Amino acid sequence: MENKYLNILREIKSVSMSTVSSDGMPQARIIDVMLVENQSLYFCTARGKDFYAELLENNMVAVVGMTKNYQMIRLSGKAKHLSEQKLWIDKIFKNNPIMNDVYPGEARYILEPFCINSGSIEYFDISSTPVYREYDSFGNMDSIMKGFEITGDCISCGICAENCPQHCIDSKSKYMIQQQHCLHCGLCYETCPVKAIKRRTKIC
Amino acid sequence: MENKYLNILREIKSVSMSTVSSDGMPQARIIDVMLVENQSLYFCTARGKDFYAELLENNMVAVVGMTKNYQMIRLSGKAKHLSEQKLWIDKIFKNNPIMNDVYPGEARYILEPFCINSGSIEYFDISSTPVYREYDSFGNMDSIMKGFEITGDCISCGICAENCPQHCIDSKSKYMIQQQHCLHCGLCYETCPVKAIKRRTKIC
Repeated sequence: MENKYLNILREIKSVSMSTVSSDGMPQARIIDVMLVENQSLYFCTARGKDFYAELLENNMVAVVGMTKNYQMIRLSGKAKHLSEQKLWIDKIFKNNPIMNDVYPGEARYILEPFCINSGSIEYFDISSTPVYREYDSFGNMDSIMKGFEITGDCISCGICAENCPQHCIDSKSKYMIQQQHCLHCGLCYETCPVKAIKRRTKIC
Repeated sequence: MENKYLNILREIKSVSMSTVSSDGMPQARIIDVMLVENQSLYFCTARGKDFYAELLENNMVAVVGMTKNYQMIRLSGKAKHLSEQKLWIDKIFKNNPIMNDVYPGEARYILEPFCINSGSIEYFDISSTPVYREYDSFGNMDSIMKGFEITGDCISCGICAENCPQHCIDSKSKYMIQQQHCLHCGLCYETCPVKAIKRRTKIC
Protein backbone atom coordinates (compact mmCIF):
# COMPACT_ATOMS: atom_id res chain seq x y z
CA MET A 1 0.00 0.00 0.00
CA GLU A 2 1.38 3.41 -0.89
CA ASN A 3 0.74 6.89 0.35
CA LYS A 4 1.06 9.39 -2.49
CA TYR A 5 2.02 12.26 -0.18
CA LEU A 6 4.87 10.32 1.36
CA ASN A 7 6.07 9.60 -2.16
CA ILE A 8 5.98 13.31 -2.97
CA LEU A 9 8.02 14.02 0.18
CA ARG A 10 10.59 11.48 -1.04
CA GLU A 11 10.72 13.29 -4.40
CA ILE A 12 11.16 16.65 -2.65
CA LYS A 13 13.82 14.84 -0.60
CA SER A 14 15.17 17.79 1.44
CA VAL A 15 12.39 18.69 3.84
CA SER A 16 12.17 20.59 7.10
CA MET A 17 11.77 18.51 10.25
CA SER A 18 10.75 20.27 13.45
CA THR A 19 10.92 19.07 17.00
CA VAL A 20 10.44 20.67 20.39
CA SER A 21 13.54 20.73 22.58
CA SER A 22 13.45 19.98 26.31
CA ASP A 23 13.24 23.72 27.07
CA GLY A 24 10.08 23.97 24.93
CA MET A 25 11.72 25.74 22.00
CA PRO A 26 10.88 25.01 18.36
CA GLN A 27 13.82 23.46 16.50
CA ALA A 28 13.96 22.94 12.74
CA ARG A 29 16.52 21.64 10.29
CA ILE A 30 16.63 20.29 6.74
CA ILE A 31 16.65 16.50 6.64
CA ASP A 32 16.62 14.19 3.63
CA VAL A 33 13.79 11.73 3.18
CA MET A 34 15.87 8.61 2.58
CA LEU A 35 13.23 6.00 1.82
CA VAL A 36 9.48 5.67 1.62
CA GLU A 37 8.01 2.19 1.82
CA ASN A 38 5.19 0.36 3.58
CA GLN A 39 3.47 3.66 4.41
CA SER A 40 6.51 4.85 6.32
CA LEU A 41 9.03 7.62 5.80
CA TYR A 42 12.64 6.86 6.73
CA PHE A 43 15.38 9.30 7.68
CA CYS A 44 18.54 9.29 9.77
CA THR A 45 20.61 11.58 11.91
CA ALA A 46 23.94 11.36 13.71
CA ARG A 47 24.18 10.49 17.38
CA GLY A 48 26.17 13.69 17.99
CA LYS A 49 23.40 16.00 16.87
CA ASP A 50 20.85 17.77 19.04
CA PHE A 51 18.17 16.46 16.68
CA TYR A 52 18.99 12.89 17.78
CA ALA A 53 18.68 13.77 21.47
CA GLU A 54 15.45 15.68 20.85
CA LEU A 55 13.88 12.74 18.99
CA LEU A 56 14.70 10.33 21.81
CA GLU A 57 13.15 12.69 24.35
CA ASN A 58 10.06 13.79 22.41
CA ASN A 59 9.30 11.92 19.22
CA MET A 60 6.62 14.24 17.85
CA VAL A 61 7.80 15.76 14.57
CA ALA A 62 6.36 18.24 12.09
CA VAL A 63 7.62 17.77 8.55
CA VAL A 64 7.07 20.24 5.76
CA GLY A 65 8.25 20.19 2.18
CA MET A 66 7.51 22.08 -1.01
CA THR A 67 7.72 20.83 -4.59
CA LYS A 68 9.21 22.95 -7.36
CA ASN A 69 5.61 23.78 -8.32
CA TYR A 70 4.73 25.25 -4.91
CA GLN A 71 2.74 22.30 -3.65
CA MET A 72 3.22 21.98 0.07
CA ILE A 73 2.95 18.88 2.19
CA ARG A 74 2.74 19.11 5.96
CA LEU A 75 3.01 16.00 8.06
CA SER A 76 2.54 15.73 11.82
CA GLY A 77 3.67 12.40 13.12
CA LYS A 78 5.69 10.30 15.47
CA ALA A 79 9.29 9.34 14.78
CA LYS A 80 10.31 5.85 15.81
CA HIS A 81 13.92 4.91 16.45
CA LEU A 82 14.69 1.73 14.50
CA SER A 83 16.53 -0.98 16.35
CA GLU A 84 18.25 -2.74 13.44
CA GLN A 85 20.69 0.11 12.91
CA LYS A 86 23.15 -1.44 10.43
CA LEU A 87 20.43 -3.00 8.32
CA TRP A 88 18.60 0.31 7.90
CA ILE A 89 21.67 2.51 7.49
CA ASP A 90 23.04 0.15 4.82
CA LYS A 91 19.67 0.21 3.04
CA ILE A 92 19.57 4.03 3.25
CA PHE A 93 23.09 4.32 1.80
CA LYS A 94 22.24 1.86 -0.98
CA ASN A 95 19.26 4.00 -1.95
CA ASN A 96 21.11 7.30 -1.44
CA PRO A 97 24.73 6.67 -2.53
CA ILE A 98 25.53 10.40 -2.25
CA MET A 99 25.55 9.84 1.53
CA ASN A 100 28.96 8.21 1.11
CA ASP A 101 30.40 11.63 0.24
CA VAL A 102 29.52 12.93 3.69
CA TYR A 103 29.93 9.75 5.76
CA PRO A 104 32.49 7.58 3.94
CA GLY A 105 33.28 4.01 4.96
CA GLU A 106 32.38 2.91 8.44
CA ALA A 107 31.56 6.48 9.50
CA ARG A 108 28.00 5.79 8.33
CA TYR A 109 27.33 3.91 11.56
CA ILE A 110 27.39 7.13 13.57
CA LEU A 111 23.96 7.59 11.96
CA GLU A 112 20.80 6.25 13.52
CA PRO A 113 17.72 5.30 11.48
CA PHE A 114 14.23 6.56 12.25
CA CYS A 115 10.88 6.13 10.61
CA ILE A 116 7.60 7.97 10.76
CA ASN A 117 4.97 5.26 10.47
CA SER A 118 1.92 7.23 11.55
CA GLY A 119 0.92 10.77 10.86
CA SER A 120 -1.67 13.22 9.61
CA ILE A 121 -1.07 15.05 6.35
CA GLU A 122 -2.17 18.34 4.86
CA TYR A 123 -1.59 18.98 1.16
CA PHE A 124 -1.87 22.56 -0.02
CA ASP A 125 -1.40 23.88 -3.55
CA ILE A 126 -1.20 27.64 -3.47
CA SER A 127 -0.26 27.86 -7.16
CA SER A 128 -3.65 26.65 -8.39
CA THR A 129 -6.63 29.00 -8.71
CA PRO A 130 -8.49 28.64 -6.47
CA VAL A 131 -5.99 27.20 -4.00
CA TYR A 132 -6.39 23.49 -3.43
CA ARG A 133 -6.21 21.56 -0.18
CA GLU A 134 -6.51 17.92 0.85
CA TYR A 135 -6.13 15.94 4.06
CA ASP A 136 -4.90 12.43 4.59
CA SER A 137 -3.36 10.21 7.24
CA PHE A 138 -1.39 6.99 7.50
CA GLY A 139 -0.59 4.43 10.17
CA ASN A 140 -2.79 4.73 13.23
CA MET A 141 -3.23 8.50 13.11
CA ASP A 142 -6.36 10.41 12.05
CA SER A 143 -6.64 13.21 9.51
CA ILE A 144 -7.06 16.60 11.10
CA MET A 145 -9.14 19.02 9.05
CA LYS A 146 -8.93 22.66 9.97
CA GLY A 147 -10.42 25.92 8.75
CA PHE A 148 -13.98 27.15 9.12
CA GLU A 149 -17.54 26.02 8.55
CA ILE A 150 -20.87 27.76 8.17
CA THR A 151 -23.42 26.73 10.78
CA GLY A 152 -27.21 26.62 10.77
CA ASP A 153 -27.27 30.20 12.04
CA CYS A 154 -26.48 31.41 8.50
CA ILE A 155 -29.00 34.02 7.30
CA SER A 156 -27.89 33.69 3.64
CA CYS A 157 -26.87 37.34 3.40
CA GLY A 158 -23.94 36.39 1.15
CA ILE A 159 -21.42 38.72 2.79
CA CYS A 160 -18.98 35.85 3.43
CA ALA A 161 -19.08 34.77 -0.23
CA GLU A 162 -18.48 38.34 -1.40
CA ASN A 163 -15.47 38.67 0.88
CA CYS A 164 -13.82 35.30 0.25
CA PRO A 165 -10.55 36.00 -1.60
CA GLN A 166 -10.72 32.59 -3.30
CA HIS A 167 -14.46 32.72 -4.16
CA CYS A 168 -14.82 29.36 -2.52
CA ILE A 169 -18.13 29.86 -0.73
CA ASP A 170 -21.06 28.29 -2.64
CA SER A 171 -24.67 29.29 -2.27
CA LYS A 172 -26.43 26.54 -4.18
CA SER A 173 -28.89 25.43 -1.52
CA LYS A 174 -27.32 27.05 1.53
CA TYR A 175 -24.00 28.84 1.95
CA MET A 176 -21.13 26.38 2.22
CA ILE A 177 -17.36 26.63 2.18
CA GLN A 178 -15.69 24.51 -0.49
CA GLN A 179 -13.17 23.17 1.99
CA GLN A 180 -10.79 21.98 -0.71
CA HIS A 181 -10.31 25.56 -1.94
CA CYS A 182 -10.20 27.38 1.40
CA LEU A 183 -7.19 29.50 2.43
CA HIS A 184 -8.19 29.35 6.13
CA CYS A 185 -7.70 33.11 6.13
CA GLY A 186 -10.74 33.77 8.34
CA LEU A 187 -12.18 36.67 6.35
CA CYS A 188 -15.63 34.99 6.13
CA TYR A 189 -15.51 34.37 9.88
CA GLU A 190 -14.68 38.01 10.59
CA THR A 191 -17.23 39.52 8.18
CA CYS A 192 -20.26 37.34 9.00
CA PRO A 193 -22.74 39.76 10.63
CA VAL A 194 -24.46 37.05 12.70
CA LYS A 195 -21.42 34.98 13.74
CA ALA A 196 -22.72 31.96 11.88
CA ILE A 197 -19.22 30.80 10.93
CA LYS A 198 -17.13 28.81 13.34
CA ARG A 199 -13.66 27.32 13.42
CA ARG A 200 -13.54 23.62 12.84
CA THR A 201 -11.17 20.91 13.92
CA LYS A 202 -12.56 17.81 12.38
CA ILE A 203 -10.90 14.52 13.05
CA CYS A 204 -11.72 11.91 10.41
CA MET B 1 23.36 47.52 8.19
CA GLU B 2 22.69 44.25 6.46
CA ASN B 3 22.77 40.63 7.49
CA LYS B 4 23.87 38.42 4.61
CA TYR B 5 22.03 35.36 5.93
CA LEU B 6 18.72 37.21 6.15
CA ASN B 7 19.29 38.29 2.55
CA ILE B 8 19.83 34.66 1.53
CA LEU B 9 16.58 33.71 3.29
CA ARG B 10 14.81 36.42 1.26
CA GLU B 11 16.31 34.94 -1.92
CA ILE B 12 15.18 31.43 -0.92
CA LYS B 13 11.82 33.11 -0.17
CA SER B 14 9.75 30.01 0.71
CA VAL B 15 11.13 28.82 4.04
CA SER B 16 9.85 26.60 6.83
CA MET B 17 8.68 28.37 9.98
CA SER B 18 8.15 26.29 13.10
CA THR B 19 6.31 27.16 16.26
CA VAL B 20 5.20 25.23 19.32
CA SER B 21 1.44 25.04 19.78
CA SER B 22 -0.24 25.43 23.18
CA ASP B 23 -0.32 21.63 23.60
CA GLY B 24 3.48 21.50 23.17
CA MET B 25 3.44 20.07 19.65
CA PRO B 26 5.85 21.11 16.90
CA GLN B 27 4.08 22.89 14.06
CA ALA B 28 5.69 23.76 10.73
CA ARG B 29 4.53 25.37 7.51
CA ILE B 30 6.05 27.04 4.46
CA ILE B 31 6.00 30.83 4.73
CA ASP B 32 7.37 33.40 2.31
CA VAL B 33 10.02 35.84 3.47
CA MET B 34 8.39 39.05 2.26
CA LEU B 35 11.01 41.66 3.07
CA VAL B 36 14.41 41.92 4.67
CA GLU B 37 15.54 45.32 5.87
CA ASN B 38 17.18 46.92 8.90
CA GLN B 39 18.40 43.51 10.11
CA SER B 40 14.84 42.21 10.28
CA LEU B 41 12.92 39.55 8.39
CA TYR B 42 9.27 40.31 7.60
CA PHE B 43 6.46 37.87 6.93
CA CYS B 44 2.69 37.74 7.30
CA THR B 45 -0.08 35.31 7.99
CA ALA B 46 -3.89 35.45 8.04
CA ARG B 47 -5.82 35.97 11.25
CA GLY B 48 -7.79 32.77 10.57
CA LYS B 49 -4.76 30.51 10.65
CA ASP B 50 -3.46 28.49 13.57
CA PHE B 51 -0.02 29.95 12.86
CA TYR B 52 -1.33 33.42 13.78
CA ALA B 53 -2.77 32.20 17.10
CA GLU B 54 0.43 30.27 17.86
CA LEU B 55 2.61 33.33 17.24
CA LEU B 56 0.53 35.48 19.58
CA GLU B 57 0.76 32.86 22.29
CA ASN B 58 4.43 31.86 21.92
CA ASN B 59 6.55 34.01 19.65
CA MET B 60 9.60 31.77 19.46
CA VAL B 61 10.12 30.59 15.89
CA ALA B 62 12.60 28.34 14.14
CA VAL B 63 13.13 29.17 10.49
CA VAL B 64 14.97 26.96 8.04
CA GLY B 65 15.59 27.39 4.35
CA MET B 66 17.79 25.80 1.71
CA THR B 67 19.22 27.38 -1.43
CA LYS B 68 19.24 25.56 -4.76
CA ASN B 69 22.90 24.76 -4.01
CA TYR B 70 22.13 22.94 -0.73
CA GLN B 71 23.23 25.71 1.58
CA MET B 72 21.05 25.68 4.67
CA ILE B 73 20.25 28.56 6.95
CA ARG B 74 18.68 27.97 10.34
CA LEU B 75 17.40 30.87 12.37
CA SER B 76 16.05 30.77 15.92
CA GLY B 77 14.37 33.98 16.86
CA LYS B 78 11.44 35.90 18.19
CA ALA B 79 8.56 37.01 15.99
CA LYS B 80 7.09 40.39 16.77
CA HIS B 81 3.57 41.35 15.73
CA LEU B 82 3.73 44.73 13.97
CA SER B 83 1.16 47.29 15.00
CA GLU B 84 0.96 49.36 11.81
CA GLN B 85 -0.89 46.63 9.94
CA LYS B 86 -1.95 48.46 6.74
CA LEU B 87 1.39 50.15 6.31
CA TRP B 88 3.29 46.85 6.47
CA ILE B 89 0.81 44.78 4.48
CA ASP B 90 0.80 47.42 1.71
CA LYS B 91 4.60 47.44 1.71
CA ILE B 92 4.69 43.64 1.58
CA PHE B 93 2.25 43.57 -1.37
CA LYS B 94 4.23 46.25 -3.19
CA ASN B 95 7.38 44.13 -2.87
CA ASN B 96 5.58 40.85 -3.59
CA PRO B 97 2.87 41.66 -6.16
CA ILE B 98 2.13 37.95 -6.64
CA MET B 99 0.33 38.14 -3.27
CA ASN B 100 -2.53 39.89 -5.07
CA ASP B 101 -3.32 36.60 -6.84
CA VAL B 102 -4.12 34.96 -3.52
CA TYR B 103 -5.51 37.94 -1.59
CA PRO B 104 -6.99 40.34 -4.17
CA GLY B 105 -8.26 43.82 -3.30
CA GLU B 106 -9.08 44.56 0.29
CA ALA B 107 -8.78 40.88 1.26
CA ARG B 108 -5.11 41.60 1.95
CA TYR B 109 -6.05 43.13 5.29
CA ILE B 110 -6.96 39.74 6.71
CA LEU B 111 -3.17 39.35 6.86
CA GLU B 112 -1.12 40.46 9.83
CA PRO B 113 2.53 41.53 9.56
CA PHE B 114 5.29 40.13 11.75
CA CYS B 115 9.02 40.63 11.89
CA ILE B 116 11.89 38.70 13.38
CA ASN B 117 14.29 41.37 14.61
CA SER B 118 16.54 39.24 16.77
CA GLY B 119 17.82 35.76 16.30
CA SER B 120 20.74 33.38 16.17
CA ILE B 121 21.76 31.89 12.84
CA GLU B 122 23.51 28.74 11.72
CA TYR B 123 24.74 28.46 8.15
CA PHE B 124 25.61 24.99 6.89
CA ASP B 125 26.87 24.04 3.44
CA ILE B 126 26.74 20.28 3.06
CA SER B 127 27.65 20.44 -0.65
CA SER B 128 31.19 21.69 -0.03
CA THR B 129 34.04 19.31 0.85
CA PRO B 130 34.61 19.41 3.73
CA VAL B 131 31.23 20.66 4.87
CA TYR B 132 31.22 24.29 5.92
CA ARG B 133 29.50 25.90 8.89
CA GLU B 134 29.22 29.42 10.26
CA TYR B 135 27.34 31.09 13.09
CA ASP B 136 25.92 34.56 13.34
CA SER B 137 23.28 36.56 15.16
CA PHE B 138 21.32 39.78 14.77
CA GLY B 139 19.32 42.09 17.01
CA ASN B 140 19.84 41.46 20.69
CA MET B 141 20.38 37.71 20.44
CA ASP B 142 23.67 35.83 20.77
CA SER B 143 25.18 33.28 18.39
CA ILE B 144 24.89 29.74 19.66
CA MET B 145 27.73 27.49 18.59
CA LYS B 146 27.21 23.78 18.96
CA GLY B 147 29.18 20.63 18.28
CA PHE B 148 32.17 19.28 20.15
CA GLU B 149 35.55 20.37 21.42
CA ILE B 150 38.72 18.60 22.45
CA THR B 151 39.73 19.31 26.02
CA GLY B 152 43.10 19.34 27.81
CA ASP B 153 42.62 15.65 28.61
CA CYS B 154 43.61 14.80 25.02
CA ILE B 155 46.45 12.26 24.88
CA SER B 156 47.18 12.94 21.18
CA CYS B 157 46.46 9.35 20.13
CA GLY B 158 44.90 10.59 16.88
CA ILE B 159 41.96 8.18 16.92
CA CYS B 160 39.44 11.04 16.63
CA ALA B 161 41.22 12.45 13.58
CA GLU B 162 41.30 9.03 11.93
CA ASN B 163 37.61 8.56 12.49
CA CYS B 164 36.36 12.01 11.50
CA PRO B 165 34.34 11.57 8.27
CA GLN B 166 35.20 15.12 7.18
CA HIS B 167 38.91 14.98 8.15
CA CYS B 168 38.38 18.16 10.08
CA ILE B 169 40.49 17.42 13.15
CA ASP B 170 43.92 19.09 13.00
CA SER B 171 46.98 17.97 14.88
CA LYS B 172 49.36 20.85 14.27
CA SER B 173 50.26 21.65 17.87
CA LYS B 174 47.48 19.77 19.66
CA TYR B 175 44.41 18.03 18.32
CA MET B 176 41.69 20.53 17.47
CA ILE B 177 38.37 20.37 15.65
CA GLN B 178 38.08 22.76 12.74
CA GLN B 179 34.68 23.93 13.86
CA GLN B 180 33.79 25.44 10.49
CA HIS B 181 34.04 22.00 8.85
CA CYS B 182 32.43 19.87 11.57
CA LEU B 183 29.34 17.74 10.86
CA HIS B 184 28.50 17.52 14.59
CA CYS B 185 28.17 13.78 14.02
CA GLY B 186 29.84 12.86 17.31
CA LEU B 187 32.10 10.12 15.95
CA CYS B 188 35.21 11.73 17.53
CA TYR B 189 33.35 11.99 20.83
CA GLU B 190 32.38 8.33 20.72
CA THR B 191 35.79 6.99 19.64
CA CYS B 192 38.01 9.00 22.00
CA PRO B 193 39.51 6.37 24.34
CA VAL B 194 39.99 8.83 27.22
CA LYS B 195 36.77 10.87 26.94
CA ALA B 196 38.73 14.02 26.18
CA ILE B 197 36.04 15.36 23.82
CA LYS B 198 33.02 17.16 25.18
CA ARG B 199 29.89 18.72 23.76
CA ARG B 200 29.95 22.46 23.54
CA THR B 201 27.27 25.10 23.63
CA LYS B 202 29.16 28.29 23.25
CA ILE B 203 27.28 31.55 23.38
CA CYS B 204 29.15 34.38 21.69
